[in-house]
Amino acid sequence: MNLVLLEPHELGPDGDVRLSDGRARHLASVLRVVAGDRVRVGLVDGPTGIGVVTTIDATCVALACTFETTVPGRPAVDLLLAVPRPKVLNRLWAQLAAMGVGRIILTNAERVERPYFDTHVLDAGHYRPLLLEGLQQAKDTRLPLVSVHRQFRVLVEDELAALSDATVRVVADPAAGFTVRERMGSNGAHGTHADRDGHQRVVLAVGPEGGWNRFELDLLAARGFVTIGMGPRTLRSDTACLALLALVHDALRG
Amino acid sequence: MNLVLLEPHELGPDGDVRLSDGRARHLASVLRVVAGDRVRVGLVDGPTGIGVVTTIDATCVALACTFETTVPGRPAVDLLLAVPRPKVLNRLWAQLAAMGVGRIILTNAERVERPYFDTHVLDAGHYRPLLLEGLQQAKDTRLPLVSVHRQFRVLVEDELAALSDATVRVVADPAAGFTVRERMGSNGAHGTHADRDGHQRVVLAVGPEGGWNRFELDLLAARGFVTIGMGPRTLRSDTACLALLALVHDALRG
Repeated sequence: MNLVLLEPHELGPDGDVRLSDGRARHLASVLRVVAGDRVRVGLVDGPTGIGVVTTIDATCVALACTFETTVPGRPAVDLLLAVPRPKVLNRLWAQLAAMGVGRIILTNAERVERPYFDTHVLDAGHYRPLLLEGLQQAKDTRLPLVSVHRQFRVLVEDELAALSDATVRVVADPAAGFTVRERMGSNGAHGTHADRDGHQRVVLAVGPEGGWNRFELDLLAARGFVTIGMGPRTLRSDTACLALLALVHDALRG
Repeated sequence: MNLVLLEPHELGPDGDVRLSDGRARHLASVLRVVAGDRVRVGLVDGPTGIGVVTTIDATCVALACTFETTVPGRPAVDLLLAVPRPKVLNRLWAQLAAMGVGRIILTNAERVERPYFDTHVLDAGHYRPLLLEGLQQAKDTRLPLVSVHRQFRVLVEDELAALSDATVRVVADPAAGFTVRERMGSNGAHGTHADRDGHQRVVLAVGPEGGWNRFELDLLAARGFVTIGMGPRTLRSDTACLALLALVHDALRG
């Protein structure tokens, strides 16, 4: 935990907060803070700041917090992901939040098995703490927005434009002849567009084990998605997600 | 399983093999092969090839295999990794093999906890099947070489040169001002050296949760390791490994 994330309602009027859950135990047992220590804090979807430990005992850590005046920007990558096996998705939540994604758009696809939708792993009550865990690891406050879509075609044709304002759309495909970097034009060579603030945003589509089918790839292509590959190795979808997010973030740094 | 890996001793004189373990079950139940089907096969540390299904029943799949005459090269990246928590390392084995590493050099460091060394997760009997699983996912045959080192200084000063012939040495450090790509000079700008065959090899050092200490970073620097970063987000060591391996492989593609 490299930053203590706080919910706005936990904060008193003077920026004071009393923690008695896992965050308190981590501060006490792992970071071994004492009164007077300063720790990095953040408000969910709000600014980061500094918390000074005012009291600490066996069950409770109290902090007096002050915050920056600006809020960190939302990560510049949205992920469109075919719902993976529950065990795989469960491991991914914290890692995706740590890598940095603005939105996690989960979708059906031909090769997604139906029972994957009927799992507690897709419940906000289950994944929200995991996303917060990833943010606390990465020192970010911006909680990824999550939505689940059972109709791939409706999602791509009708809903995606409202979900993601990313102007660069890429889809991972083992058969692709271009890398992320080549497609995104780290030298500006491929004419991708920045938004009004000069920031480029990307939506990255990652398919199910076994890949997108032809119809799905064609539909994505018709909506502006260009294929990207990572060479001849075929990766499990969780490994592929993390590798591709690293490459997209790297390309965005220019 | 995108390739069926075979041990050399399993193969009959005419390239025939009878499988009755998890590989047979995967061929029968997931890939649903029938007699006459062709599947991708490979020999551990040997060539890839094609296996034709000759017979299949409830317990056994027989293949007639023919192999290429050349053996795939060893992946161009070696990983020097401070031993992570057993749970994290356990998840990493297959993913590292899938991403592609020539060697996995596990080391002690100040912030590695001692019990991490006393776990079955470091036993070859435990990790070898997981490495094979990763290779079968990625369609590779080259089994990563694994070694475990309890003395960081002895490893870096005396043993590393014999373990890895990589001419590019990079160490992940959140404080680094350069990215993988900048350090490795995808435009040749930083004068990294290729080996006799024109192939660049890289050794990537990834520290423990909490990072390398000053002494460890200085020792690595004295042995030619240059620091690389991935921006302001702090990642868990397994996430960092996968992200960095993606970036190094991408930079090697030039």
